[in-house]
Amino acid sequence: MQTVTQFLQAHQTEALETLKALLRIPSVSAITAHKPDVRRAAEFVREQLASAGLTTELVETDGHPIVYAEWLKAGDAPTVLIYGHYDVQPPDPLDKWVTPPFEPDVRDGCLWARGATDDKGQMLTHVLSVAAWLKAEGRLLINVKFVIEGEEEVGSENLDKFLAARRDQLRSDIAVISDTSQYAPNIPAITYGLRGILACEVRLHGPKQDLHSGIFGGAITNPANALTRLIASLHDAHGRVQIPGFYDDVLPLAAAERASFAALPFKEADFFASVGVTAGWGEEGFTSTERRWARPTCDVNGLAAGYQGEGPKTIIPAWASAKITCRLVPDQDPHKLLKSLGQFLQAQTPPGCRLEFAEQHGCPGFVADRNSPFMEAANAAIREAFGVAPVMIREGGSIPVVGTLKELLGVDTLLLGWGQNTDNLHSPNEHISVADFHRGILASALLWKEIGSKR
Amino acid sequence: MQTVTQFLQAHQTEALETLKALLRIPSVSAITAHKPDVRRAAEFVREQLASAGLTTELVETDGHPIVYAEWLKAGDAPTVLIYGHYDVQPPDPLDKWVTPPFEPDVRDGCLWARGATDDKGQMLTHVLSVAAWLKAEGRLLINVKFVIEGEEEVGSENLDKFLAARRDQLRSDIAVISDTSQYAPNIPAITYGLRGILACEVRLHGPKQDLHSGIFGGAITNPANALTRLIASLHDAHGRVQIPGFYDDVLPLAAAERASFAALPFKEADFFASVGVTAGWGEEGFTSTERRWARPTCDVNGLAAGYQGEGPKTIIPAWASAKITCRLVPDQDPHKLLKSLGQFLQAQTPPGCRLEFAEQHGCPGFVADRNSPFMEAANAAIREAFGVAPVMIREGGSIPVVGTLKELLGVDTLLLGWGQNTDNLHSPNEHISVADFHRGILASALLWKEIGSKR
Repeated sequence: MQTVTQFLQAHQTEALETLKALLRIPSVSAITAHKPDVRRAAEFVREQLASAGLTTELVETDGHPIVYAEWLKAGDAPTVLIYGHYDVQPPDPLDKWVTPPFEPDVRDGCLWARGATDDKGQMLTHVLSVAAWLKAEGRLLINVKFVIEGEEEVGSENLDKFLAARRDQLRSDIAVISDTSQYAPNIPAITYGLRGILACEVRLHGPKQDLHSGIFGGAITNPANALTRLIASLHDAHGRVQIPGFYDDVLPLAAAERASFAALPFKEADFFASVGVTAGWGEEGFTSTERRWARPTCDVNGLAAGYQGEGPKTIIPAWASAKITCRLVPDQDPHKLLKSLGQFLQAQTPPGCRLEFAEQHGCPGFVADRNSPFMEAANAAIREAFGVAPVMIREGGSIPVVGTLKELLGVDTLLLGWGQNTDNLHSPNEHISVADFHRGILASALLWKEIGSKR
Repeated sequence: MQTVTQFLQAHQTEALETLKALLRIPSVSAITAHKPDVRRAAEFVREQLASAGLTTELVETDGHPIVYAEWLKAGDAPTVLIYGHYDVQPPDPLDKWVTPPFEPDVRDGCLWARGATDDKGQMLTHVLSVAAWLKAEGRLLINVKFVIEGEEEVGSENLDKFLAARRDQLRSDIAVISDTSQYAPNIPAITYGLRGILACEVRLHGPKQDLHSGIFGGAITNPANALTRLIASLHDAHGRVQIPGFYDDVLPLAAAERASFAALPFKEADFFASVGVTAGWGEEGFTSTERRWARPTCDVNGLAAGYQGEGPKTIIPAWASAKITCRLVPDQDPHKLLKSLGQFLQAQTPPGCRLEFAEQHGCPGFVADRNSPFMEAANAAIREAFGVAPVMIREGGSIPVVGTLKELLGVDTLLLGWGQNTDNLHSPNEHISVADFHRGILASALLWKEIGSKR
């Protein structure tokens, strides 16, 4: 192991340059025009794994390709499945970035670029730790299988087909994913719970074209006004989501878990200040931490209708649309709730409007066993790399593959985040601490040793 | 008069070409980039009036220039003030136009272009009728003063200053404006009432930037969801506007007026079908005609928030905005109601959001005396040009200058519309019937005779 540690020390600059090269590729999976860039990013990752000595494959799908790689020469040692994604969120609003999103810049101890933390930077820690083992030691103490996809930010449409088709090939003892965060700077964490998600787009169609609001206003249903009534109806005054059946399957928070959340260092005023607000609004009866980690939500991600340019334009818009996502917790069923949401909105669609309801994607929430041997291994590796024991937390984001891995392969997942949730993921000026990036690589390398010793 | 009629007959092609030349100038007053085009349109109109023999002036303002022209050689005959505007609405959505908005095209008996009916085509009928009188007869039987502005579509910010400064120069007996519509094809109309307007833009500011909806969702106020609650609160379930004091000063509709509205030919199903809907939604207890002409409204003209591109993006938007206009009726006060609206929205702004409320412009509604001698003159001129007596109607749009002319100059206005309200004004594929355009010029020429005979 010491040779691996020394190798990592000696190659820090090279590791950072590798990440910067990957970040220069604008692999925005949501935008069709970036399709060739997404493929370039896949090929880059495959090349890294191949040159480390793994057997690699670029797996074609109906969408973006999946990078598969394996090293299986550790005999009956445990097999670890490493999942990550090389695609990124759209970078807009572009004018808010201090340096361009696809021109990585190091300043203030951080590396700034779209994907720096979500997930290119975190995913690459495992690629580099495995490469370090193979280069320094010529072997690993475990077998590894990498699955690095390019559609995580658009719902992983084609991943499930791949996982189902390769079920035998992918058989593993544990999965590892680094697509979460530390609890705070210098407070590393193991994430044992995630929220699920459902996503949809709602469009209310009104008149066949934009109409003069003087000539027609008052007698023709305005789809923009009507849409606000539909969206407003999604919450009551107490912050409770009004989709029928929404809370039916929600597992209540146990008192012990609420107590463990409450014991974490957290200053609500600082939390609000970090995003530029002085107060929050949410479901009554729950703390901010509970609201983010263990309670479901219903958020509008985008609104569009009519004229958005400079000055006034006196029209009744022909249509109005909203992008909506709900974050879900165990045991809410995204598909059942998408149906319920569609019916709820349809029932309220006023005369003179037609509802178009497009289901986009969904995945359930997840909570893991906090006391497994793999949790112990992760705890030991992180303690050594970061010099402090990790806290046990949940997170509010969604990693759909965690549920799929459990369902299709029967495998549990270790969620080990090296970044910070203030790293502006999904926002302008995304970044990762350079120190955290290197500590992540080290923790990953140590984890392979710890799991190998569980043989 | 016969020489004038013959002149108009002989110069129909030339008249149409003049309109087409004006329509080719994209004089969109709302968009800063079009500022030079707006000026070109003003110069074009001034040139038409100068070559007809009027004394002209391009009056500079803090915004777009005003074209002023006069011919005052009819001694103590009545003086007519003709108002119109040479600016147009923005043309988007561009992809909905059959032919480009600033490339006039004649097909199906109509001329298609942005501004064809609102107001370049209608305004030009008076320029051309005056030119015909001066060219065919060498004189007019009345004195005329033209005020053609370039800021009607953005609230006429600088017109009032001009009218106030030139109060003496502009003194007249009657004003004439063609910026309304016929009641229907072959049912010409005199419009004796208009709605007023108030316009504003509302922006809710939330977090300092777009946030990850998984990490923050549930604990941070979503400005897009919050905006929908604010906008939805503007109406109750009966279609009544909820702005405090909104109906306090509304003049109730007299039974006689409701009866005269009801006597007009109107098929509600056809009205809805003409704009591609099967039903409407509005204030309970009023017909569609009453809702459009004599009841106030509150319409969203545009919505914007967060991500509007392809696919999903799981964010809490940093802000959400709405453009709002209310159509007003006598005696509602736009400035009082703008204040009330701002306070109403402020009172509902939730913790974690900051309201930005920008008042844009406002003008009161208008109802004229239906039995004045000038009304009789207009009735006679229209009857002769169109071969049928006009009906007396109100209209739902707003022409702020009508109130200003009354207030500053003490002059009443004849609202004589030559277009149709199905001409797609403010919409893609705006057009005017070529026959209506020529009948409008003739009716205008006859009106100068009729008013001249009132001496």
